[in-house]
Amino acid sequence: MNVREEARAMKLAAPRMAASTMEQRNAALTKIMEVLEEKKNDIYRANDADVDAAKASGVPQPVIKRLRFNEGKLKDCVSGLKQLTLLPDPVGKVTLRRELDEGLLLERVTVPIGVIGVIFEARPDALIQISSLCIKSGNCAILKGGKETTNTNRILFDLIYEAVTGAGLPAGCLLQVTAHNEIDELLGCQGDVDLLIPRGSNKFVQYIMDNTNIPVMGHSSGVCHIYVDGMADLQKAIPIIVDAKTQYPAACNAVETILVKRSIAAKFLPMLDDALYHAGVKVYGTEEVTGYMEAEQIGDEDFGIEYSDLKLSVKLVSDVSEAVDHINCYGSHHTDAIITEDDEAAAFFEQMVDSAGVYRNCSTRFADGFRYGFGAEVGISTGKLHARGPVGLEGLVTYKYRLTGNGQIVGDYAEGRKEFHHKDL
Amino acid sequence: MNVREEARAMKLAAPRMAASTMEQRNAALTKIMEVLEEKKNDIYRANDADVDAAKASGVPQPVIKRLRFNEGKLKDCVSGLKQLTLLPDPVGKVTLRRELDEGLLLERVTVPIGVIGVIFEARPDALIQISSLCIKSGNCAILKGGKETTNTNRILFDLIYEAVTGAGLPAGCLLQVTAHNEIDELLGCQGDVDLLIPRGSNKFVQYIMDNTNIPVMGHSSGVCHIYVDGMADLQKAIPIIVDAKTQYPAACNAVETILVKRSIAAKFLPMLDDALYHAGVKVYGTEEVTGYMEAEQIGDEDFGIEYSDLKLSVKLVSDVSEAVDHINCYGSHHTDAIITEDDEAAAFFEQMVDSAGVYRNCSTRFADGFRYGFGAEVGISTGKLHARGPVGLEGLVTYKYRLTGNGQIVGDYAEGRKEFHHKDL
Repeated sequence: MNVREEARAMKLAAPRMAASTMEQRNAALTKIMEVLEEKKNDIYRANDADVDAAKASGVPQPVIKRLRFNEGKLKDCVSGLKQLTLLPDPVGKVTLRRELDEGLLLERVTVPIGVIGVIFEARPDALIQISSLCIKSGNCAILKGGKETTNTNRILFDLIYEAVTGAGLPAGCLLQVTAHNEIDELLGCQGDVDLLIPRGSNKFVQYIMDNTNIPVMGHSSGVCHIYVDGMADLQKAIPIIVDAKTQYPAACNAVETILVKRSIAAKFLPMLDDALYHAGVKVYGTEEVTGYMEAEQIGDEDFGIEYSDLKLSVKLVSDVSEAVDHINCYGSHHTDAIITEDDEAAAFFEQMVDSAGVYRNCSTRFADGFRYGFGAEVGISTGKLHARGPVGLEGLVTYKYRLTGNGQIVGDYAEGRKEFHHKDL
Repeated sequence: MNVREEARAMKLAAPRMAASTMEQRNAALTKIMEVLEEKKNDIYRANDADVDAAKASGVPQPVIKRLRFNEGKLKDCVSGLKQLTLLPDPVGKVTLRRELDEGLLLERVTVPIGVIGVIFEARPDALIQISSLCIKSGNCAILKGGKETTNTNRILFDLIYEAVTGAGLPAGCLLQVTAHNEIDELLGCQGDVDLLIPRGSNKFVQYIMDNTNIPVMGHSSGVCHIYVDGMADLQKAIPIIVDAKTQYPAACNAVETILVKRSIAAKFLPMLDDALYHAGVKVYGTEEVTGYMEAEQIGDEDFGIEYSDLKLSVKLVSDVSEAVDHINCYGSHHTDAIITEDDEAAAFFEQMVDSAGVYRNCSTRFADGFRYGFGAEVGISTGKLHARGPVGLEGLVTYKYRLTGNGQIVGDYAEGRKEFHHKDL
């Protein structure tokens, strides 16, 4: 396959995809739900082949779990698709309507981004979620999944593609690339591919960012913090910390560092010690932390690490202001939480922490498109431009300005014969 | 000056700038208006030195005109500042408010981007506009203006900085860099500078994009089109084309190519010939165009050029669909117009042309932040991500998600003990 040529063809198809109706796009999603149910045994069979091959080549158990596509995951996918069909059309929303002058009407209207390239880890449900988000938002998509799910991806893609074109969406609106070298070809498609969304390890995302001129949306790392304030309800703090660390330690929204106000250390750290010990979490801490709880000693230079494992670092701070400075300096601007009953400290924290998610009295693990009610997510952005945090439909559209006149020229305004009146309608 | 260190210091000041009130930011803008009026003779004197030096080194007349800061430009700047103080606060707007579950409230709130680096051409009014947009939107800014206005920029920056800090905004929220080598230092400030906005030649903007990992917003070129449809009112078409080409030929929103429906060529091209001749515009055209009007013959490979001069290319197309394909292929996704009285053709054009601005029956020169009522613009974006078209205050903010709970953990939802209800408030 010549990815550059395919991307060029897709670029030309993109305006027709953008012009599709919501009825067509929802019909495509409904059709996908149906064929997934109908062909589920074929999908499971293809998936068995992937899982067997992965086991044979010694892929570790947690990864195998991610590769596996079963009744439970199918149910989640179908429910996500259902939720997506119920969401309003993200395309064609008029977000500004202003008369610049008599008979000169400016409108800003949301439109799909165009052609999106998504490179994602070996997870069959990711292929379904990503393609359905792109379809609902009227985008064309080039999909490249992890090689360990090649068989599952092939059948899923074929079913989805047939459903989509069957519902009247343009041929060529979706494309799957499978060879690893095609990633580099994709990176060279600036001008035809409008956006790249890489998912995977920090190293991989960084590689993509360093090797393309196409805009990239993604997160380079997830170093999340929880600050336990002096006015914290410690009975809330403990389960929140345990959940944020252990519910899915490899997730980017899992917590990596706990900051504790020094004045409550003597009371809180022994409680934390006990809870983390029972949860099987290994603790790293500064020298003063080791005086209150079991921890391997670390220095300031050791913060800012994403453990992605049952490991956690702990540090004492004098107040919320020092906590904020630590987070802004060592964090990855992903999601950070304060545990406090003090409204003033919470407001300060929420204002000053420069992250996509600023939380109070709940687990950082809530940072997720499903949990936010977006139907699904294509990823979580730690960048500040365009989309921040979990990226759902709204992150997959841009806008254009429509200006309608009846012969207006700029010279009349520049030379004072006419004046703008800028009336919002 | 060590730009990296200054940028790091600014990064740490950014949350305090973001926390400033609209009253403080508007007071700063008002103070700027006052000191500009008060110190105008000092500014003119500094500007005279710049203009004299430019003349002595043989800078061409149109550029001299841009360097000049006089009563007229001061008036425009003050009126832009006034307009800006009247605009609503772009910061702190809640754009989503959703109860995920009982007692778990999600809010999305607009926040400044943080630290913005703007590199702009030698135009004193640009310094005033850019810094005032950054102030109003709560951003910190590093400014680098063209070297031909060094003296004017120095006094303007000093006056603005004094006004801003006098109004209670944090010290260090604005910085001017002046040495050319400091641009390269600025390009290396990823992590501390959140966004770069380069203005200037295509080549310069491309250089910036190729040499930094910081997100860049800008336009790489302005190749704008006007399509004259078969149902065009030709009495509107002629003045619109003349305005779009001649009112300011060097502007990025000036038209470069006229596409004409073949069926009206015999009638329209002689009219166009006459008008362009009188306006002093040189025409390039395909072979068939030269049969109808005075034009130097060009081939398909010669389209897509930004003349930035009193030059224009003309091509015939069979219908609106071919016009759209030409524009999407050769254009720069900036601003393109259709001249027609046919609603269907207009709707097709507006839907299918993939540009920041899609216009009907008016000049492409309207693509401008002032004319759109944004108070000012930091530039025009031909990218699709984050901001598209003229970039005013809304393009200078991003958002964060606030999630407020009372002890909620994800485990309860993952294991079915609780369910999200996603209620928009």
